[in-house]
Amino acid sequence: MKKHNFSAGPAILPRTVIEKSAEAILDFNGNGLSILEVSHRSPGFTKVMKESIALVKELLNIGDDYAVLFLTGGASTQFFMTALNILGDDETGLYIDTGTWSTKAIKEAKLYGNIDVIASSKDKNFSYIPKGYSIPKDAKYLHITSNNTIFGTQFHNLPDTDVRIVSDMSSDIFSRPIDINRYDIIYAGAQKNMGPAGTTLVIVKKDILGKTNRKIPSMLNYETHIAKDSSFNTPPVFPIYVSMLTMQWIKENGGVEAMNKRNIEKADIIYNEIDSNPMFFSPIAKEDRSLMNVTFLLHDSSKEDAFIAAAAAAGCVGIKGHRSVGGFRASIYNSMPKESVQALVNVMRNFK
Amino acid sequence: MKKHNFSAGPAILPRTVIEKSAEAILDFNGNGLSILEVSHRSPGFTKVMKESIALVKELLNIGDDYAVLFLTGGASTQFFMTALNILGDDETGLYIDTGTWSTKAIKEAKLYGNIDVIASSKDKNFSYIPKGYSIPKDAKYLHITSNNTIFGTQFHNLPDTDVRIVSDMSSDIFSRPIDINRYDIIYAGAQKNMGPAGTTLVIVKKDILGKTNRKIPSMLNYETHIAKDSSFNTPPVFPIYVSMLTMQWIKENGGVEAMNKRNIEKADIIYNEIDSNPMFFSPIAKEDRSLMNVTFLLHDSSKEDAFIAAAAAAGCVGIKGHRSVGGFRASIYNSMPKESVQALVNVMRNFK
Repeated sequence: MKKHNFSAGPAILPRTVIEKSAEAILDFNGNGLSILEVSHRSPGFTKVMKESIALVKELLNIGDDYAVLFLTGGASTQFFMTALNILGDDETGLYIDTGTWSTKAIKEAKLYGNIDVIASSKDKNFSYIPKGYSIPKDAKYLHITSNNTIFGTQFHNLPDTDVRIVSDMSSDIFSRPIDINRYDIIYAGAQKNMGPAGTTLVIVKKDILGKTNRKIPSMLNYETHIAKDSSFNTPPVFPIYVSMLTMQWIKENGGVEAMNKRNIEKADIIYNEIDSNPMFFSPIAKEDRSLMNVTFLLHDSSKEDAFIAAAAAAGCVGIKGHRSVGGFRASIYNSMPKESVQALVNVMRNFK
Repeated sequence: MKKHNFSAGPAILPRTVIEKSAEAILDFNGNGLSILEVSHRSPGFTKVMKESIALVKELLNIGDDYAVLFLTGGASTQFFMTALNILGDDETGLYIDTGTWSTKAIKEAKLYGNIDVIASSKDKNFSYIPKGYSIPKDAKYLHITSNNTIFGTQFHNLPDTDVRIVSDMSSDIFSRPIDINRYDIIYAGAQKNMGPAGTTLVIVKKDILGKTNRKIPSMLNYETHIAKDSSFNTPPVFPIYVSMLTMQWIKENGGVEAMNKRNIEKADIIYNEIDSNPMFFSPIAKEDRSLMNVTFLLHDSSKEDAFIAAAAAAGCVGIKGHRSVGGFRASIYNSMPKESVQALVNVMRNFK
């Protein structure tokens, strides 16, 4: 039976990407070696790294004033690495707290400067994106989590400010167009919308670096990795390769504009069912609902296990909600086909 | 034609490991999903993580007073993370400088305490392991690089001291038995003798942690990862899976004692040829020669390209020496079969 993989991350990848990845494991570029055993300095992999960087720039319309890095350590490492690299001891970073990952970013950044949490939706269990706050003009940056994987909220517009944006886009990178000129740093763990677990994309405006006078270990300094094209040390070869294949797939399927259109269509299908089906409801403010992670609950929570069983019987897996929210979460990233969303909606319709 | 992969790292893996890896990409555990798209919190991957940790402990005879972690960032991140976690501002870490990687470890550790380089073989381009130095007794630890991938030297005995050892074993982990009781920390990038690029093994004595009063970002604190079984954030799922398969292969093939025996046999074959063939010589002190990375040169260096071409014609790839040494380097890790070593020796014999 075909599986419909609604996991929040690591998450679904296009089947063609999976098949090409398996081929490269057995024989990379027809050279008789596995991609797992070729040097990161070989021409074959150097080409992969170059193409991966070029694809990020092309897909997101990024110019040469930005560096594109493939690092490791996940968004969790970027929580402090961003502040470590650009926030001076006497400078202020602004944060909007929209849930678990924002909260962690705030905690880690506090080691390196003044952190001002200017807005939070904690009062209602992060079920909305804060509005109506004021933004100090003299801050170094404003940090947001563009999409909140756990709670199912998403910034559909950037905050109205001239302050430079630092954004954790782990769960919606490449899901829609962005205006790169608003950002100083964008970072994203690969394992939701870009590839498998094991690499972290960082996009950083080059001219903001080197200004804190802080002594930074080489591996934590963006400038180290920029100078060496993300190969200062051995990069995570295979996770980068799979990310490249996924970006090629995005490009072949129309780029981020086409992804966005498809993502809106898919989200509409499932949110319409949630809003019209009397058994279910969404805990999230309508205007802030995520196009990537759809959270929903049963009015009668005693039936949760039965619904998960019914979904599993139809091949729909990975829909159990995070313990902070309960209920269900359907993650419908770029690679999720419309038919899979329809399969889940059919289960919801037939569930009594 | 069969390829004999002598790359220094990422490096050769057992063919069965490569084939099982490709299978898991297409279908992990027969559950209809790729290992690239399953949650790191799923029962399937939790089992992989547990078995990986258990295999490290079993293969190296490690007790429960040590934690086994699978992190990211490579040995390059451990260069500073070791000192950051255990070296107080007023404490001293001793270092033996045996080449590129030691030199980097020294540079990065200097950010966090007193670093005393008690011995170095820099005077002869790191062609030997230093001897006859004295070791201060009151140091926090003594750091060594157990095997020097670039120069082709290896510690065949630990320094004679009661000072606790911190060792970078990136290029000889699992190649021979160790006496774990001498060590406070062992670290190793996976991509030489353990698996593909993308994960880093850290073995740390638990009772040495938490004593520096230093504020450490969560992701850089060993205690964070110990508390969460290396799943504080999303671990590099696939590189860990392949490492598990490689450790299973080591176990099935007799463990590290059998690996050591085979490694000595393989190294003997090639060093005997270097010493007896009038065209070649080894730049390395005989008693310090590495069993993992065999460096050698032609007396007539103008014939280097011709030798590399002759080797390639016989399927032997990845033998070009690092630019710091020149000549050739044959990396003959655990997974390298004796027949491949013999194939290279045949090229050396036939080379005129």
